[in-house]
Amino acid sequence: MKIAIVGATGLVGRELLKLLENLPIKKLFLFASKKNKIIFKKKEHPVERLTKDSFSNIDPNITFFATSSEIVKEFYRYPKSYIIDLSSHFREDSSVPLIIPEINSHLIKNQRIIASPNCTTTIMLMAIFPLYKKFKIKRIVASTYQAASGGGKKLLDKLKKDTQDHLKGNPTKERPYGFNLFLHDSPLDKKLYSKEEQKMIFETEKILNDKNIKITSNCVRVPTMRSHAIFLNIEFFKRPSLKKAYELLKREKGIKIIDEGEFATPIHANGQREVFCSRLRIDRSQKNTLEMWVVGDQLLKGASLNGYQIAEEILQNWL
Amino acid sequence: MKIAIVGATGLVGRELLKLLENLPIKKLFLFASKKNKIIFKKKEHPVERLTKDSFSNIDPNITFFATSSEIVKEFYRYPKSYIIDLSSHFREDSSVPLIIPEINSHLIKNQRIIASPNCTTTIMLMAIFPLYKKFKIKRIVASTYQAASGGGKKLLDKLKKDTQDHLKGNPTKERPYGFNLFLHDSPLDKKLYSKEEQKMIFETEKILNDKNIKITSNCVRVPTMRSHAIFLNIEFFKRPSLKKAYELLKREKGIKIIDEGEFATPIHANGQREVFCSRLRIDRSQKNTLEMWVVGDQLLKGASLNGYQIAEEILQNWL
Repeated sequence: MKIAIVGATGLVGRELLKLLENLPIKKLFLFASKKNKIIFKKKEHPVERLTKDSFSNIDPNITFFATSSEIVKEFYRYPKSYIIDLSSHFREDSSVPLIIPEINSHLIKNQRIIASPNCTTTIMLMAIFPLYKKFKIKRIVASTYQAASGGGKKLLDKLKKDTQDHLKGNPTKERPYGFNLFLHDSPLDKKLYSKEEQKMIFETEKILNDKNIKITSNCVRVPTMRSHAIFLNIEFFKRPSLKKAYELLKREKGIKIIDEGEFATPIHANGQREVFCSRLRIDRSQKNTLEMWVVGDQLLKGASLNGYQIAEEILQNWL
Repeated sequence: MKIAIVGATGLVGRELLKLLENLPIKKLFLFASKKNKIIFKKKEHPVERLTKDSFSNIDPNITFFATSSEIVKEFYRYPKSYIIDLSSHFREDSSVPLIIPEINSHLIKNQRIIASPNCTTTIMLMAIFPLYKKFKIKRIVASTYQAASGGGKKLLDKLKKDTQDHLKGNPTKERPYGFNLFLHDSPLDKKLYSKEEQKMIFETEKILNDKNIKITSNCVRVPTMRSHAIFLNIEFFKRPSLKKAYELLKREKGIKIIDEGEFATPIHANGQREVFCSRLRIDRSQKNTLEMWVVGDQLLKGASLNGYQIAEEILQNWL
């Protein structure tokens, strides 16, 4: 099997490479904005600069785009392989399936291009889907606590530098991130929902294939390095029992429940494949409503791992 | 005028002293768990160790308790003065008024002991009350982003140390707070609401004198040093217009609106007396519902400033 990765040196690309160590790969084609080298299966591999000719003389079976939507837009037409797009470029395209394998892997069939959802959406839906199937969801209020690495290496470096400067008594005045937090800086629509919030809403509707589900979301970048946390308030059509909700979640392979007063933190979730659910409780303020504290590594299940699982589906069924 | 402060060297006590610089004070009696010295109005003042005899030979007009509820319980009976209690000790006592001067200062009259609310409650209610008066609130979903200093100097020091250690590549394994966040660590009730969440619920009902208001709250400690942020989803009985909501909030002296795409951050709010309201929007998921991002300095309006304002009311009206 031959794999190409565009964006191989980014935070998600590197996590993806770690996952691919488990697969029998005959050839690996790595691309980034600059030439580089990467160790894979204990051997050095060149990373080439991405150009329009990059795919002329190679024949990958699957190409991962672990890069920006702008790069995907410019380059997706060149590889003749399956494409797994981790960017937002194809997510709103109705001819492209948006896949979380645990939820809708059946839609992959006969598709050459497959989109992987926004990291926060994926983590939320992993926790929600088992309950959704049973009780049907009427409305979700999501409040996020998102890590710096969700904004790429640049934002992660800014967090480290700003924090260091703050501790030295010399805090920056330019959007200080050290010991600070801010609303997600993606563009706002007319109703003042940020693009990140719009993604959570649109992608949930698409993945659940449910236009009636009501969602509001407030996305906040907090000064953590990795793993997103989400507080979910979920109103169901049917009365959910806490016991049944636990049972349903416990059954899922990609979910880990932490409880008895304990709960997951971002540092806890870092490097873990599971989405952690804790503090499951009945909302005292409204009937048919549950609350949950969800934490997941957004570089893994939120991005690279989800893409890797899509590749596994393709390999098992269509390659 | 003579003022006593129990807990003078704590984070809140020190902020209170800064505010008191503005008042004509004839005598200042300062107490803490250890002997100490403090500069006030450019003069050194002794801080005495608090004992049962501390109040035997002094005659303050007002005694502030800027300390734990345990200390209040043990010592409140000794001063013969007005007592302004910033701890949680008296908040649930039906014979003691729980005061945010902008909301219910009329209840101070003829009371010797006055309680100041939990910091997160105060910041939330400052933002909610102008809207509550006009549109009546049915239900609130509150998600908090609370700073380390809300847990006192010890927790603030832990945040600094854990962050420093993390940056040095030597992170602690004991409930790491550096670049991490956790659900509020106050005790849980049977329904898994933490004491902090219970306070927000109970105190809101008491201050608004409204047992019908439905509230759920998820309290999270984030790695910021100072100022709490709260995402509020507020359902009203009447349809609130965004324009009217802005008007009502703009009128309030203790509130500052930040808008046109901008928003307040904790660092922005540090040291500021106002509660900052931003990202006011109509919730797309439910009718009659508004959302708001609220940030306030919990050491100021959340504690010392609220206590100071209560003292001003006493001075102006009853001393």
